[in-house]
Amino acid sequence: MDKKEQAIRAHLEWAGKIEIAPRVKVETREDLAVAYTPGVAEPCLKIKEDKNLSYAYTRRHNLVAVITDGSAVLGLGDIGPEAGMPVMEGKCVLFKEFAGVDAFPLCVGTKDVEEFVRTVKLLEGSFGGINLEDISAPRCFEIERELKKVCDIPVFHDDQHGTAVVVLAAVLNALKVVGKDIAEIKAVVNGAGAAGCAITNLLLSAGLKNILLCDKVGILDADTEGLDDERAKYAAMTNPEHVSGTLADALVGADLFIGVSAPNIVTGEMVSKMAKDAILFAMANPVPEIMPDVAKAAGARVVGTGRSDFPNQINNVCCFPGIFRGALDVRAREINDAMKIAAAKAIAGLIPDEELSDENIIPTPLDKRVAKAVAEAVAEAAVMTGQARA
Amino acid sequence: MDKKEQAIRAHLEWAGKIEIAPRVKVETREDLAVAYTPGVAEPCLKIKEDKNLSYAYTRRHNLVAVITDGSAVLGLGDIGPEAGMPVMEGKCVLFKEFAGVDAFPLCVGTKDVEEFVRTVKLLEGSFGGINLEDISAPRCFEIERELKKVCDIPVFHDDQHGTAVVVLAAVLNALKVVGKDIAEIKAVVNGAGAAGCAITNLLLSAGLKNILLCDKVGILDADTEGLDDERAKYAAMTNPEHVSGTLADALVGADLFIGVSAPNIVTGEMVSKMAKDAILFAMANPVPEIMPDVAKAAGARVVGTGRSDFPNQINNVCCFPGIFRGALDVRAREINDAMKIAAAKAIAGLIPDEELSDENIIPTPLDKRVAKAVAEAVAEAAVMTGQARA
Repeated sequence: MDKKEQAIRAHLEWAGKIEIAPRVKVETREDLAVAYTPGVAEPCLKIKEDKNLSYAYTRRHNLVAVITDGSAVLGLGDIGPEAGMPVMEGKCVLFKEFAGVDAFPLCVGTKDVEEFVRTVKLLEGSFGGINLEDISAPRCFEIERELKKVCDIPVFHDDQHGTAVVVLAAVLNALKVVGKDIAEIKAVVNGAGAAGCAITNLLLSAGLKNILLCDKVGILDADTEGLDDERAKYAAMTNPEHVSGTLADALVGADLFIGVSAPNIVTGEMVSKMAKDAILFAMANPVPEIMPDVAKAAGARVVGTGRSDFPNQINNVCCFPGIFRGALDVRAREINDAMKIAAAKAIAGLIPDEELSDENIIPTPLDKRVAKAVAEAVAEAAVMTGQARA
Repeated sequence: MDKKEQAIRAHLEWAGKIEIAPRVKVETREDLAVAYTPGVAEPCLKIKEDKNLSYAYTRRHNLVAVITDGSAVLGLGDIGPEAGMPVMEGKCVLFKEFAGVDAFPLCVGTKDVEEFVRTVKLLEGSFGGINLEDISAPRCFEIERELKKVCDIPVFHDDQHGTAVVVLAAVLNALKVVGKDIAEIKAVVNGAGAAGCAITNLLLSAGLKNILLCDKVGILDADTEGLDDERAKYAAMTNPEHVSGTLADALVGADLFIGVSAPNIVTGEMVSKMAKDAILFAMANPVPEIMPDVAKAAGARVVGTGRSDFPNQINNVCCFPGIFRGALDVRAREINDAMKIAAAKAIAGLIPDEELSDENIIPTPLDKRVAKAVAEAVAEAAVMTGQARA
């Protein structure tokens, strides 16, 4: 049985990867009278007096909505809301298994940004946080921006920020391995979609100064035409020397390549023109921008991909469970850059300096220590930046 | 510790009455590769080809949303969406415990009918059914009507139809006890809100002909002024002899009283003017329209209330878990009157004729046989009426 057939059969057998579990027994009249009527009226009245008490009397304190419109699911593109749900359910499994967070999958049947935002906003009282998932760019930028404005609970687009956090973690440790300073290096991010823009943003926040952001048209710059607002913003924040050219041009002398783009678009020749001790994170899935052996043969020192069958797997399973665990634990208003950078440092910090090597820069997604370390760091950063409410 | 304090403490200790439970393990890379990426792409692609397969590959086949706007919670009135959530969570516990249905609570932060309907419609792909809850009349009528039009999954307002089903079950058995025919009796329904209108509708569907529907203004009739559309519809369908007057007038010679109204509004004197072997279901909570001992002393034969501390408790816990279990089992398009009547008959049928008595006309809400019997009857009725899709 091939792997695809195995996945199909497993999903049919599971008949859903999550279910609802009661936390209370209702076996006697007394049970019913406390958990349901008439007893339940009491917590209702408490919450009526103070909405904040919904965090004490309902599951809200531990509950995250995993919400998609199905417009950019995995590498499959716009497959529709219902078709995105197996991914959302999988994500909910990981939230619970790795961080004890109760996550519930929802698909929203609209492509209209305003309508999507309004729908999620109207459900806000049911949840303690919103994890947006698999929404296509540039709509995802506007949706996240608007939701952050109108919602009083943390909103986090995992495809952007989860990826960015794990990439930053990998970058921090890879730089230790090669002995370079983040403020001094030249980086190239290829793919100006949701992930590429967020990675660029977080690297800038973390002190990286010289980033070239590339797209199909080549190196972006402040005056590149035809960019949506979000891409235009990052184009203006990057490329400080206003160079132009192709991805190949961008890579000449670069210390770091981050690919969130397409299979096989980086060649050995391009890598050979990068700086000494080059770092490449080729994260196109399932086929990376360049295969690790080809990159290594061309002189790269540290290579990571999204795949579990190569060293240095960069997978946002390392981020999202812990980041929401931390945010929920202190009832954070939002998940800001300081919290994301704290998460990245916590992930990176799980590999002791003496164990760091070209092929060991990041913990595996199955490492159960990760979520706890991330949660603690995120909660602390929330407190330090005045985002904590509990 | 009094009962209110006990309920508060229990809710704080539970910190939420439901949680999410994974149905799959993710302990190895292999697990992750099947349940999440890359394996999860396969069921996604299947559903993309045929949306119906979301019932096979996700939890949708067993999943009901319990949705409120918090506008008519228990007897507490409009306490707001967040404050309604302890009730919704309790309901979700009962769905799972009694019928194995996974139910998830959502509160929607709008009072606008159109916006509420649109919000729920946009979430349709996430669920196999919609249980509306604690929404005030007359908005609940319009919301349910519109949702039934636009949704392809069953929509059921439990406060209306769950109550109606259990009342009909009680009526059927009570009529057996007193030896009267539903087509021949005179009934009075007091309280033309969500429950009162739905009870009236179902009793008419079940063959009761002479119903007087009363509200604060007295007996309603086709020409009663100031009624909203829904109430006007029932006013026109009832009161075949176009009588007018007060509730007291209505009760003269009545065989059946059903109260979904207010405490202590029926007196012993009013009961004494009802027909011989009168049946009274006084369901105002926690204080009924008339206390059972008063009603009995005035000549009533069968008396039921919503309370567990008196005989004949009429509680919709007997209905909603089983009715959705049956509807989900055959993927019913909707929950129609035939399915509701089948549910009522199944509930009533659980008390064998030889055990029926004035004080034993309906199973208790904790009777685990009820949901199974209801589910089977509902599924069969769905098949018979062409509503089943699986």
